[in-house]
Amino acid sequence: MSVGAGTDTTEAHLEQRCRAAADAAAPLGATSHAVRARWLSVVADALDDAVDDLVAVADEETALGDARLRGEVARTTGQLRMFGDVIAEGSHLDAIVDHADPHATPPKPDVRRMVVPIGPVAVFAASNFPFAFSVAGGDTASALAAGCPVVVKTHPGHPRTSEAVATIVVDSLAAAGAPEGTFGHVSGFEAGSLLVTHPRIRAVGFTGSVAGGRALHDLAASRPDPIPFYGELGSINPVVVTPAAAAKEAASIAEGLVGSFTLGVGQFCTKPGVVLVPAGADFAEHVVAALGDAAGATMLDERIAAGFRAGLERLGSTAGVERLAGPAADLSSGRNGVASVFAVDAAVVADTPELVREECFGPAVVLVRYRDDEELGRVLDVAEGNLTATLWATEAEATDGHVAALLERLATLAGRVIWRGWPTGVAVNWAMHHGGPWPATTAPLHTSVGAMAIRRFLRPVAFQDLPDALLPPALQEPNPLHIWRRVDGQLVR
Amino acid sequence: MSVGAGTDTTEAHLEQRCRAAADAAAPLGATSHAVRARWLSVVADALDDAVDDLVAVADEETALGDARLRGEVARTTGQLRMFGDVIAEGSHLDAIVDHADPHATPPKPDVRRMVVPIGPVAVFAASNFPFAFSVAGGDTASALAAGCPVVVKTHPGHPRTSEAVATIVVDSLAAAGAPEGTFGHVSGFEAGSLLVTHPRIRAVGFTGSVAGGRALHDLAASRPDPIPFYGELGSINPVVVTPAAAAKEAASIAEGLVGSFTLGVGQFCTKPGVVLVPAGADFAEHVVAALGDAAGATMLDERIAAGFRAGLERLGSTAGVERLAGPAADLSSGRNGVASVFAVDAAVVADTPELVREECFGPAVVLVRYRDDEELGRVLDVAEGNLTATLWATEAEATDGHVAALLERLATLAGRVIWRGWPTGVAVNWAMHHGGPWPATTAPLHTSVGAMAIRRFLRPVAFQDLPDALLPPALQEPNPLHIWRRVDGQLVR
Repeated sequence: MSVGAGTDTTEAHLEQRCRAAADAAAPLGATSHAVRARWLSVVADALDDAVDDLVAVADEETALGDARLRGEVARTTGQLRMFGDVIAEGSHLDAIVDHADPHATPPKPDVRRMVVPIGPVAVFAASNFPFAFSVAGGDTASALAAGCPVVVKTHPGHPRTSEAVATIVVDSLAAAGAPEGTFGHVSGFEAGSLLVTHPRIRAVGFTGSVAGGRALHDLAASRPDPIPFYGELGSINPVVVTPAAAAKEAASIAEGLVGSFTLGVGQFCTKPGVVLVPAGADFAEHVVAALGDAAGATMLDERIAAGFRAGLERLGSTAGVERLAGPAADLSSGRNGVASVFAVDAAVVADTPELVREECFGPAVVLVRYRDDEELGRVLDVAEGNLTATLWATEAEATDGHVAALLERLATLAGRVIWRGWPTGVAVNWAMHHGGPWPATTAPLHTSVGAMAIRRFLRPVAFQDLPDALLPPALQEPNPLHIWRRVDGQLVR
Repeated sequence: MSVGAGTDTTEAHLEQRCRAAADAAAPLGATSHAVRARWLSVVADALDDAVDDLVAVADEETALGDARLRGEVARTTGQLRMFGDVIAEGSHLDAIVDHADPHATPPKPDVRRMVVPIGPVAVFAASNFPFAFSVAGGDTASALAAGCPVVVKTHPGHPRTSEAVATIVVDSLAAAGAPEGTFGHVSGFEAGSLLVTHPRIRAVGFTGSVAGGRALHDLAASRPDPIPFYGELGSINPVVVTPAAAAKEAASIAEGLVGSFTLGVGQFCTKPGVVLVPAGADFAEHVVAALGDAAGATMLDERIAAGFRAGLERLGSTAGVERLAGPAADLSSGRNGVASVFAVDAAVVADTPELVREECFGPAVVLVRYRDDEELGRVLDVAEGNLTATLWATEAEATDGHVAALLERLATLAGRVIWRGWPTGVAVNWAMHHGGPWPATTAPLHTSVGAMAIRRFLRPVAFQDLPDALLPPALQEPNPLHIWRRVDGQLVR
């Protein structure tokens, strides 16, 4: 039962998809990790095979360009294969064995714990990553790897790309023998709300705006049976430049900043939106010089471009904020967005904290000039949670206790702390954390990128005094899966 | 600034405690695991030293009896010491190191991830465990071990016990050198709500009723910045007895059941509240015989006893439910509760699912008679989430595929599955999971008992390209803490 690209899903179709997902939960959860890893690899191969067609349609819809979109398909298929490797390794099962101790007071039973799939997962696709955070993106890959059926709510910004990817996922899973209902998708605003409140859905993965994420978070929390809502709601991604770094490397830092804040037309949740720079230094001039003659670029869709221009208006009309580059008035229309640079004194931020709180999604950056540590600290005090925080100090300052304290401060604000680098570009590996205190994410303990993202969709179960034959293989005494387990307190394999 | 036992905390006092906790967060988080482990041990020693006085006052307040309360103090201090061992071992830090790969496309940075304390934690004490789930209970122990300051909301059922324990915790932490504000406590209903919505509080641990937990969950979710709410809201804890087990071992199973459902006057969240037994067997007679002449017992407080008697009324007046033991009418008053046994046919449960959903907190059990697998399955279908689910089959049935399937079904309903045992008595070890699908807990991925409970209060942070000297010790290249870490995908120490 396929629905045309961009057509809103009816309530009946949504019901059918959620039921199919619920029906698939038990057979999917019962499959071995080797089998699920193979399915993920089959999907990845099919997407790679179709890369030319997928990139062509995605470029028509998003204007992100051939190179970026090819890279994103590779990232997407790489994620699918990585989660196959993760479940094959088996540590994600968090297997723990505590043998009985009949002589303890009170006597201790044999208790063995592992994690099991949480059940059908709803995944909300993002506007700005038509592949890697969409239909077959990281949320879908980690949920399927966990053994959870997935129902994706597609993003209206790239309906044909979504449909093309969904068709490949459905067909390749079916050909590989996955249970019907392992994967499905729905479209439309209303379908999204129905999905979050559907009784069969057990968790939600979301990437999008604070407003949209907040609304869906509240829906998930208000269910008769609240479910986990893993929302990634964007970020300001503050960057701090120390006086020493500004004095020594202003030109090259400014060049790196321009590359980062304009990358992908600034449409990354990790875009550096606020840079704290020492007052009096000529850092701003270097940024404006590096930006050069900023022409407009095509943004993801008209709604996003209009939102960006509204953000520029808001920044430009805030008392105390100077516009250093970018259009003085809203001369653009359609999907056009022009890179813009603003500057403001730190003292102003205390009165208008939204300057370091409200994301302006697109190629805009605000330089906040601080005169001393106290002013720097006060700006960080009014900042909220972020996905990333970056420090540009000189290499010589690395042994400086002051810089160590500043990094610690930044770690309280963000889920990823970067030294002398840029936050755009999120490596997909075991160590990556893509999350942060509210409003960066709704569930600050969990990441939506990297291997640990699978934890969001796994629920622990302890088995007490079960005969070995009745235990899941991961917990059987001889460790037939040869996985790492904690046995009587010690990690062993 | 101490408040008298049982006196409601004023808003000003609450504010002072939350600020003190927030001020303690950074210095506490910066302490080494060895130091925090020592503090936990100091607190445990001080509580053990005061056991006679503590048990005396707790018995006056809760009537749980000397033996049980002494055991509970030992469990409480054992938990404090266990979390010291857990943080000394260091695996809770989830340290992951992915070295840079400059030759990858795109180049991969050096990314290192660990967890850090989430910040001040609010802990709601339980009525039924004046020590182990109260002021210095598992939530407090795991939060302090994680490096989070704690503000406890005491339970009104045992104010003097709470005050005595809190004084010992505060004094022993201060003597050991912990930062002021590491631990504080508040009392009163209003203080509880204020605590959950206080801007400085970053997570909540709660043990209590579904109604109370739901209300606080909703408060936490509706904050401008929602925070994790870890609520343990009680459970029905279904037990299934197979026909073979009923035929072979009815008397001994019935005896075990009576011991379990009347233990502690039935005031455990793991009390078996519903037992599915084969129709036609004489299981019920054995239960009634094992119960004998059930005299009343003193419950925790008048409110709980009144709630229990209301539950008996509700069960006794439900169409199709027979009362097999217990008072026919509400003849009790005060804190008295009389053990009661009810029976109902499985077919009735389909129309009145609340029979297997609503907890009757106290010494009552409902026997649900099923005629065949289909009826058994239908009862399990209307059940909701539980902390535990238990299967009594014969040992010979362990090789029976039918029994394996039944255990799998029970694992979808509960966070702990027990074979031929009883759910009361929750071992505190690495493998224990005390949680389950809603409404057993609000956060089904997290446990409130056992080593993994510490995860609730730890938030991941990734560090990208930091010089070794600026990294936390857990992530420095030479692994100075000698902890298990995942390095380039492999677990090593």
